[in-house]
Amino acid sequence: MTATPVAATLPLEVALIERLAAGLPRSPLQRNARHESDAELLQLPGSNALIALTIDGIVEEIDRGLYTDPYLVGWMTVTASASDLAAVGAAPLGILVSTVLPLDLEAENLARLRQGIGDASAASELPVLGGDTNTGGRLQTAACAVGFMPDGAPLGRRGCAPGDRLFASGPLGIGAAFAILQLGAGGPGAAPPHYQPRARLREGQLLRGVASAGMDTSDGALVTLDELMRLNGVGVRLERRVEDLLEPQALRIARSASLPPWMMLAGPHGEFELLFTVPPDRCAELMARARSLGWDPIDLGLVVAGPGLTLAPGDGGRLDTRRARDLFVETGGDVERYLSELSRLAGGVTASRIR
Amino acid sequence: MTATPVAATLPLEVALIERLAAGLPRSPLQRNARHESDAELLQLPGSNALIALTIDGIVEEIDRGLYTDPYLVGWMTVTASASDLAAVGAAPLGILVSTVLPLDLEAENLARLRQGIGDASAASELPVLGGDTNTGGRLQTAACAVGFMPDGAPLGRRGCAPGDRLFASGPLGIGAAFAILQLGAGGPGAAPPHYQPRARLREGQLLRGVASAGMDTSDGALVTLDELMRLNGVGVRLERRVEDLLEPQALRIARSASLPPWMMLAGPHGEFELLFTVPPDRCAELMARARSLGWDPIDLGLVVAGPGLTLAPGDGGRLDTRRARDLFVETGGDVERYLSELSRLAGGVTASRIR
Repeated sequence: MTATPVAATLPLEVALIERLAAGLPRSPLQRNARHESDAELLQLPGSNALIALTIDGIVEEIDRGLYTDPYLVGWMTVTASASDLAAVGAAPLGILVSTVLPLDLEAENLARLRQGIGDASAASELPVLGGDTNTGGRLQTAACAVGFMPDGAPLGRRGCAPGDRLFASGPLGIGAAFAILQLGAGGPGAAPPHYQPRARLREGQLLRGVASAGMDTSDGALVTLDELMRLNGVGVRLERRVEDLLEPQALRIARSASLPPWMMLAGPHGEFELLFTVPPDRCAELMARARSLGWDPIDLGLVVAGPGLTLAPGDGGRLDTRRARDLFVETGGDVERYLSELSRLAGGVTASRIR
Repeated sequence: MTATPVAATLPLEVALIERLAAGLPRSPLQRNARHESDAELLQLPGSNALIALTIDGIVEEIDRGLYTDPYLVGWMTVTASASDLAAVGAAPLGILVSTVLPLDLEAENLARLRQGIGDASAASELPVLGGDTNTGGRLQTAACAVGFMPDGAPLGRRGCAPGDRLFASGPLGIGAAFAILQLGAGGPGAAPPHYQPRARLREGQLLRGVASAGMDTSDGALVTLDELMRLNGVGVRLERRVEDLLEPQALRIARSASLPPWMMLAGPHGEFELLFTVPPDRCAELMARARSLGWDPIDLGLVVAGPGLTLAPGDGGRLDTRRARDLFVETGGDVERYLSELSRLAGGVTASRIR
């Protein structure tokens, strides 16, 4: 498949959304531009307060066999939306859940789905406000989460500048590692790691007024970096080796599957951490606030003027994040082919470790 | 199939939702009890203002062949959620749309889907704030609408008392008539009528402070009446013949299909009007407000102490709305069997007109 003219200017999955949303009128109360925020931000009439809204369906993850445990489906139904609230720094208010339940869904599986929803709802402080139940051929869910910002100062994807530091809210790579093993591309007999990410809601609220830009890694860290670089017209230089950024299990899985560590940063399935940028004169404030939560943000590197992602010395130099981002769509979701195409992206040391 | 113990206390589709939602903790900010409001009502922290939230999936309607035109899918995606906002009297703020698009969806059908969403968004004054796009085997949509009530006085399903008048916001029956013909149960060669309901948002806002209870007829008027009677512990006596309440096309279709007119009030596919009750001393105020919109509410009859629905003299007496409501679930969605079972519910004059 060759890149289409649209793909030349927009990432493929953004182009798909644009096909549906383009040309529709916008609300004068909406405070974010399309694709520039993880959640939609709406100013309440007669007030400076904002509500944050997000909708997210769990469909492909089930269809592709990525989520097979109904507990995980329930957990992720809530967590995916909660993470979008985290990325704008909203306080969680509640969530609505829409489900499509197969008529032959076993009672035990329904109970596990409910347990996953309930546990993530408690972990995210997002009470289930209501929902909608349909019957259908396959289990599917969608959720809409709502958050609140009384002072109307959200965190957005746009706002960073060269010189800002780039941070991750936690270790990376478990989302990709889980997907690779769950989908059987990690070699024979490899069991997937435990995957149950927590939405970084407290951390997100703490970042408001400190971070210059932020976004969650729901689609993997490379997609997030690509989007932040695209929207802000900047580049990123990692100053730490990727293996030092990875969750230990993700690194172990990369090694046992003979994959270069950076491939654990690729999407489209992520770890639901936050990537965010902080101006140099705000870094001390960030660290002070983080200590109050007992939280250790990971300093990844530097926002630079030049475009694109540069890996740390020894990790292979430049990485074409846009190309990496589009590859999953272009390979039609064939995981083996995706990993193989992805591996061609990086030359030198990295490629030599693949086989 | 016989009624289960759960069905003996709750309508079947309510019981299904309860299986998923039961036992989950509630938000202290939520102002409605479960099933007692068409939209979830959330008080904003530090304020008397409420936001109204609703989520609604369009899945079964597509799977069963009820909605085949992508324009109608798009229109109903917005309108179904908008109607829930109307039923609580909220001012519309915006809507989020989640879609599952088949990879082979033709460009023309995608354009029609978008047009339907856009037209209903404009008609309902609900700007599309954002959304989520998945790929999958079949077209599906879900939407989450948000509305606002600065003074925090919503319209709810509970609150009516014997002596209140019962009104409909407009003629009834087009939803059932459309479904019967669209699903091929209206006899050979009968083309379905045009079906494109408008959410009654302005009317709903006007009803706040006048109506004692209200609910939309998204699942048909009988379901709505059954729910209002159940929640309020009252009965309803219709004072007008059903044929005088029906949309003219719905009456024509009932006659040409040899179905009794009241069957056009059955669900599960409705006309998205509002049914609402007004205390006798507020009826003059209702009419004055309605005139300001150029709107003619239809006076259906009286809320009474005794349980159940009594049709007007000549329409066949009592009608078991609970049984009518559960029949569609019990017959597994087989439309011919549903209509046949439904027809047994009413005796006398009504039944004799079936064949």
